[in-house]
Amino acid sequence: MIRINENYQKLQASYLFAEIARRVNQHQTENPDKEIIKLGIGDVTRALPEACILAFHQAVDEMAQDHTFRGYGPEQGYAFLREAIATEDFQKYGANIQADEIFISDGAKCDTGNIQEIFSQNIRVAIPDPVYPVYVDTNVMAGRTGSYHQGRYEGITYLEGRKENGFVPQLPSTPVDLIYLCYPNNPTGAVISKEQLHQWVDYAKNHRALILYDAAYEAFIRDDTLPRSIFEIEGSREVAIEFRSFSKTAGFTGTRCAYTVVPKSCTAYTENGEPCSVNDLWNRRHTTKFNSVSYPVQKAAEAVYSPEGRQQTRKLIDYYLQNAALILKEITKMGFSCIGGINSPYIWVDCQQKSWEFFDLLLDKAGVVCTPGAGFGTCGEGFVRISAFNNYEKVVIAMDRIKSALS
Amino acid sequence: MIRINENYQKLQASYLFAEIARRVNQHQTENPDKEIIKLGIGDVTRALPEACILAFHQAVDEMAQDHTFRGYGPEQGYAFLREAIATEDFQKYGANIQADEIFISDGAKCDTGNIQEIFSQNIRVAIPDPVYPVYVDTNVMAGRTGSYHQGRYEGITYLEGRKENGFVPQLPSTPVDLIYLCYPNNPTGAVISKEQLHQWVDYAKNHRALILYDAAYEAFIRDDTLPRSIFEIEGSREVAIEFRSFSKTAGFTGTRCAYTVVPKSCTAYTENGEPCSVNDLWNRRHTTKFNSVSYPVQKAAEAVYSPEGRQQTRKLIDYYLQNAALILKEITKMGFSCIGGINSPYIWVDCQQKSWEFFDLLLDKAGVVCTPGAGFGTCGEGFVRISAFNNYEKVVIAMDRIKSALS
Repeated sequence: MIRINENYQKLQASYLFAEIARRVNQHQTENPDKEIIKLGIGDVTRALPEACILAFHQAVDEMAQDHTFRGYGPEQGYAFLREAIATEDFQKYGANIQADEIFISDGAKCDTGNIQEIFSQNIRVAIPDPVYPVYVDTNVMAGRTGSYHQGRYEGITYLEGRKENGFVPQLPSTPVDLIYLCYPNNPTGAVISKEQLHQWVDYAKNHRALILYDAAYEAFIRDDTLPRSIFEIEGSREVAIEFRSFSKTAGFTGTRCAYTVVPKSCTAYTENGEPCSVNDLWNRRHTTKFNSVSYPVQKAAEAVYSPEGRQQTRKLIDYYLQNAALILKEITKMGFSCIGGINSPYIWVDCQQKSWEFFDLLLDKAGVVCTPGAGFGTCGEGFVRISAFNNYEKVVIAMDRIKSALS
Repeated sequence: MIRINENYQKLQASYLFAEIARRVNQHQTENPDKEIIKLGIGDVTRALPEACILAFHQAVDEMAQDHTFRGYGPEQGYAFLREAIATEDFQKYGANIQADEIFISDGAKCDTGNIQEIFSQNIRVAIPDPVYPVYVDTNVMAGRTGSYHQGRYEGITYLEGRKENGFVPQLPSTPVDLIYLCYPNNPTGAVISKEQLHQWVDYAKNHRALILYDAAYEAFIRDDTLPRSIFEIEGSREVAIEFRSFSKTAGFTGTRCAYTVVPKSCTAYTENGEPCSVNDLWNRRHTTKFNSVSYPVQKAAEAVYSPEGRQQTRKLIDYYLQNAALILKEITKMGFSCIGGINSPYIWVDCQQKSWEFFDLLLDKAGVVCTPGAGFGTCGEGFVRISAFNNYEKVVIAMDRIKSALS
């Protein structure tokens, strides 16, 4: 008899964004004439940078001729892209990362979801709360948790983000082995300082733990004192993996390209304490279960690093940061306390009521979609996330509508 | 202490194609002036069909304007592609498959590798020998096997392909739960008849087993009496999943698009025998760990189903089938017995010696790369796979060179 992976039955009913989509669709059906403004799901809305479009077209043309056509590429990604990334995203900022430590993929969601496969079933996993749901769900599926009670899975160490700690959790009080961190943070928009990140790296070194550092929103950092990469922190090469994406950097959410950095010196252990290369493990996983990213997409991603691409992507991010600044200003003026919105496209609003209630209120009264904080974990209750990914004109209208709805 | 998934340590050293690449590179370094002809890895060499190129460019142009730009798409793929597939690849051939039973992905390698995650650790897995290595390796990584001895992993039921059974294995003599089948077969080029496939479906129904049917080479079928899909077989909707790819159909190996068909009535069970929808399970896996395929790539794939696309992809396949026919004729003339090469791009040659020896001989004496059968399993020893994926002119030269080398 073919039996299912019963860990899937522990998963809670619906993925957060599916539930949001359901409520939005229902509202739209009931109010067909109302224009809804979506500041919910973190999806970009602006066209791809011109440099990417040009490179994309050129690569498609290469696919049209036998003598320039490309079949299977290297599973880890083309050298042209891995080298550009190593130089431009790391070495330029003083982080010693080489091209063969970079694995190109089709998304940070896939990578942060798949990475746990290379580790033992029997490790203690620490996950922030509030958090991007994929970190938790993929560990549930893998059987690293018990069942779900009152918003939490047994067996996970939750790293609590609170107003009091600025949503940068304290180090865990009981030992853990695998630590998920994300800065600039999704969903809270919080950032981490070099000193704070250093404490996590020191913790990992002292406990032989490993940090999974999700830096998908790195491009939004405008404060040069903040770390862009965990690999700017001394000693991190032995204890960290970093995830990056072109989704938010260059508007690639529908184009699909990302990468994961696994330093050659990053180490995990057998049960007997024998050290193993995590780069080797991930390379094996990647080459066995993945066949790299579409060649034209890799060429479009490479164009992000050209002088024109640099300038255009910076302009794109500036645009969203301008939205974020407006949202932060207006929502604060309405009397709500917020974090994020600076060095981040997300504004995390203390909504002074249940988050799904506030979600429904904004949807019904203002026709604006946000994301209920409770969907990101128990510590997210009482908050909503507002995303800056939309057109400026719509953000202006959304703020006006919210102001009227709440007054 | 962060511990590794020790199942990875059971994996044998190198992935087959990496070892081939190593030997080819070494030979090329030692013989820099010799032009090597690659009939090894099953990679296409001809340009994308014009209809796909046109649609690809148009979709890139859509990404260049805010008002036509696309961000995140549906994780299961766009309706336009799922609907075209359901109609054109299934309903037209009498297989009752609907759009919401189709999951678009970036490759059949990923799908056949990931699918096992949704099933229990404690199932009995049956895998053909010889076989595409991914089926075995991903089950080893998941911990469903013991260690490796003399070419085989403990705990796997090997379905032996032999000359005597035309490389269509007999039904297993001990009960199994999950069965991998691939027709037209990689690596042997063998095909399966409707009657034979019916026996497997009946077996699965009688044992509440599930068949994973890899039909990545379906487009090469020219004999209308052969099944193109397992869903042409009565009763299969309850007991089968099918994998398809645009890689070989339309030359998408470097463009990346594939799909998996999971019927709504396909069933697996809890330990207590409670039935569960496999479509629901895969949907959960897919939406949690994957973010769909690049929009322009999905548009390019859709173009395969236009009248022009149909005609152009058929021409593409005809071209490779012409190569296959030539290889089959010439190799047979040289006195080797072969299977495949008809309804398939692969010719499986009984090389009358160790397969790596014959591989080295063809590389050294003829400058031709094939794939050693032993790399696909113990039953592949004594055979090599010759692939028809190359330019016709090169195939002609390769056959001449092999003839001279062996005479």
